[in-house]
Amino acid sequence: MKLKELAAALGLELRGDGELEIAAAVPIEAAAPGTISFVSAPRYLAMLERVAPSCLIVPAELAAAVHCAALISANPVLDFARALGLLHPPQRPAPGIDSTAQIASDAQIGPQASIGAFVVIGAGVRIGARAVIHPHATIYANVSIGDDFVCHSHVSIRENVVIGDRVVLHNGAVIGSEGFGFVEVGQGLVKVPQVGNVVLESDVEIGANTTIDRATVGSTYIRRGVKLDNIIHIGHNCDIGAYSRFAALTGIAGSTKIGEWCEFGGQTGVADHVTIGNRVRVAAQSGIPGSIAGDNITISGAPAIELRRWRRQMAAYVRLPELVQRIRALERKVGLTGRGRGSED
Amino acid sequence: MKLKELAAALGLELRGDGELEIAAAVPIEAAAPGTISFVSAPRYLAMLERVAPSCLIVPAELAAAVHCAALISANPVLDFARALGLLHPPQRPAPGIDSTAQIASDAQIGPQASIGAFVVIGAGVRIGARAVIHPHATIYANVSIGDDFVCHSHVSIRENVVIGDRVVLHNGAVIGSEGFGFVEVGQGLVKVPQVGNVVLESDVEIGANTTIDRATVGSTYIRRGVKLDNIIHIGHNCDIGAYSRFAALTGIAGSTKIGEWCEFGGQTGVADHVTIGNRVRVAAQSGIPGSIAGDNITISGAPAIELRRWRRQMAAYVRLPELVQRIRALERKVGLTGRGRGSED
Amino acid sequence: MKLKELAAALGLELRGDGELEIAAAVPIEAAAPGTISFVSAPRYLAMLERVAPSCLIVPAELAAAVHCAALISANPVLDFARALGLLHPPQRPAPGIDSTAQIASDAQIGPQASIGAFVVIGAGVRIGARAVIHPHATIYANVSIGDDFVCHSHVSIRENVVIGDRVVLHNGAVIGSEGFGFVEVGQGLVKVPQVGNVVLESDVEIGANTTIDRATVGSTYIRRGVKLDNIIHIGHNCDIGAYSRFAALTGIAGSTKIGEWCEFGGQTGVADHVTIGNRVRVAAQSGIPGSIAGDNITISGAPAIELRRWRRQMAAYVRLPELVQRIRALERKVGLTGRGRGSED
Repeated sequence: MKLKELAAALGLELRGDGELEIAAAVPIEAAAPGTISFVSAPRYLAMLERVAPSCLIVPAELAAAVHCAALISANPVLDFARALGLLHPPQRPAPGIDSTAQIASDAQIGPQASIGAFVVIGAGVRIGARAVIHPHATIYANVSIGDDFVCHSHVSIRENVVIGDRVVLHNGAVIGSEGFGFVEVGQGLVKVPQVGNVVLESDVEIGANTTIDRATVGSTYIRRGVKLDNIIHIGHNCDIGAYSRFAALTGIAGSTKIGEWCEFGGQTGVADHVTIGNRVRVAAQSGIPGSIAGDNITISGAPAIELRRWRRQMAAYVRLPELVQRIRALERKVGLTGRGRGSED
Repeated sequence: MKLKELAAALGLELRGDGELEIAAAVPIEAAAPGTISFVSAPRYLAMLERVAPSCLIVPAELAAAVHCAALISANPVLDFARALGLLHPPQRPAPGIDSTAQIASDAQIGPQASIGAFVVIGAGVRIGARAVIHPHATIYANVSIGDDFVCHSHVSIRENVVIGDRVVLHNGAVIGSEGFGFVEVGQGLVKVPQVGNVVLESDVEIGANTTIDRATVGSTYIRRGVKLDNIIHIGHNCDIGAYSRFAALTGIAGSTKIGEWCEFGGQTGVADHVTIGNRVRVAAQSGIPGSIAGDNITISGAPAIELRRWRRQMAAYVRLPELVQRIRALERKVGLTGRGRGSED
Repeated sequence: MKLKELAAALGLELRGDGELEIAAAVPIEAAAPGTISFVSAPRYLAMLERVAPSCLIVPAELAAAVHCAALISANPVLDFARALGLLHPPQRPAPGIDSTAQIASDAQIGPQASIGAFVVIGAGVRIGARAVIHPHATIYANVSIGDDFVCHSHVSIRENVVIGDRVVLHNGAVIGSEGFGFVEVGQGLVKVPQVGNVVLESDVEIGANTTIDRATVGSTYIRRGVKLDNIIHIGHNCDIGAYSRFAALTGIAGSTKIGEWCEFGGQTGVADHVTIGNRVRVAAQSGIPGSIAGDNITISGAPAIELRRWRRQMAAYVRLPELVQRIRALERKVGLTGRGRGSED
């Protein structure tokens, strides 16, 4: 693609030679002739001493500092993502239903669907237009799915799940598995039937091998635009607010309600029946045992507390051995030893 | 279902109009005319100002406090679970073996089995009566399974696994994968062959995408009635005691032995070659580096300690920044500063 | 197998009766007539009072202490692993391609492959000699795989993945899923296209239900001889150094580079864009928020620090309640109370 064509497609101002051929979009470390990359802040300019891209996507204030062609952008990360999509368009399988797919006679599949080998689609399923369903996906009975669905191999969608438009499910994800509920009775455990479902609203994306349990009764909700990374567990009856994003290996216990636009680091855990507000950022490996009041805050630790307080706590924590010595020095100074000093030590 | 029929089926005393039609069992927040719900303790009675169920399952002492029909129960949670099962009976696929299933010629399948599309059953496998095996399950050779088996899509059962009666495996679970054992030799790593198996005793339920490694030699045991949530890892040669329950994302390293009726919170980790007693409750995100003596205790933290001690520790931990200030004040008071005070600070 | 045959196959010196029949290799707890086991250190000799193996693999200095036949070994663990492999040889399915497998017409499969039921192999895939691919594996387009590949059921290999020789993928593993990258734009989230791939070098082994994301641009590298346990997440653009081993439920965020011969305990987390050296050992449940300087060290904790320092910190941490009491005793002794003592307490 010529650089001038890319500039036009992105709607960005071009400074430099529009006839340059651009073959790939690459991160700045890999920039070379024939590639386009981006610089979003002055601290990355030093990289340019070692690499020679044909073009960089830069904010206007950095344009003078680069020695190659430039596309002027108010949001270089976003425009680089768009350039990636233009230079490396996704491979969509051709429409058609593989002859090995097992589709219930009463299932309704919208136009232009691409359905791969060994896909199983149960009774009463309805799927909108342009679905791409890769091999070995299993869709149980009475599932309802919107338009532009993308479903990768080995996904399981359990009965009665409801899915909006433009939802993407990555390999091995499980949507609508039975929640974990047992009652101890005498010599055994009785299972609480899990008769609800899962609702994935539009623009949701679910990572590989992530599991979302259906509600005991009612629905587990994953709201519009939520993005879940790989190997995440969402318990029964949770409600995950719109556009929230969770990193890998995070677990949310049952009946917890999380606000919109939250961002959770990896391996975070949240207890059951907890409520968390909007735009709450949670550091990786945090543990949240109870509800968090307040929106637009950052928390960390286990139990998670406000980030600034957590930093003060950690600063004291790493000095603990020193504090013990200081307490000992104080005790020596004032003549406090043995039992009199207040402890069994 | 009429309320009088439900009362009879549950064997509970009915107070109120037995002719009421009950369409669904719901949690108290969603209670409405035509539904049944439950109240197990006085603190939930306040909910009744906002909702109007047709009937509530309540302990005798709360019956007078509710203004709708009531079923009197010694265990409202259990009887609600039973009502759920009666009002929303599980959909069992009709018996029959899908024509696409690949079943080894010497495999033995008990009567009334329902086997879905693309199921693979290897040589020498024996399965008891009334199995329900959903699409895409793979059962390797020489697996032995009892009666009333339920196996969801994309489950893998590796060779020589032994499974009891009434076992349920959720989507994507892996039973009998090879354990993680390597010996460092010169310039590489030599794998320790994993030649044992996994034994799942009767009434075990395994969550979605959970993995259970087979023993290096001998068996990994999951004892009667154990319930594992989603995305749990059980290492080779573990022995998980009867009726123990683990929440999601928990990991148990190899050769660890856990007692009966334990309850582990989510994201808990246990080291290898550890022994834990009976009825040990473990708080979420705990880490257990060594054996835990004693039954019927509750532990928390990493390393996990007895809950009461952990609470005292956490109470001091959250006050750490304050303790630093108090130490400084003491040092000023007694004239201890610089090197003399016992540390590098 | 006669003991003299086993000794010859292992190349070890035999002391005792070479005519003994050895049926199984077992751990020392299960040793019995007809079995071989091993003892690697004097502390395990006490076990021999309770068990009676036919033969033990022992270091020369322990040979006199055992009362059965012995094989003299400089590395009893390794030679026991080798004996396991000889006495319990892995079952390799017979070569042949199942009639139900769906293989693209232009895919190239090397000689002596064994390909199971319902396997899907996409366009442009190349696979070397002697591959064993179990049922329900899905290999997307343009994947390249070396010789002696072993792939278990329900594995997904996404487009353009490159795999070396002697690689083993366990059940449900996902190689090359799309990385987790989104840019917040106005009222929504825009996905950063993930156009790179994953490279698994030779002798890599990947555990059940583990997921490895492909690079945004370029490659995610899993270097020669790396061993990943079950349910691990590797983010996009990571580079995991040769022969490193990670235990289950570990997560590595994007663009992190880890050295060679590292060993990570279970449930460990590493932040994005971090660099870690060679032969770094990490205790289970550690959290690594930033780069770790230095090779051949052991770290622990969250944030992870050098093990000796961590131990001193933990020793102080568990004494926190006592330290609070000692501070109180000091305050009483010097007459510091209320506001004057430096805190809000």
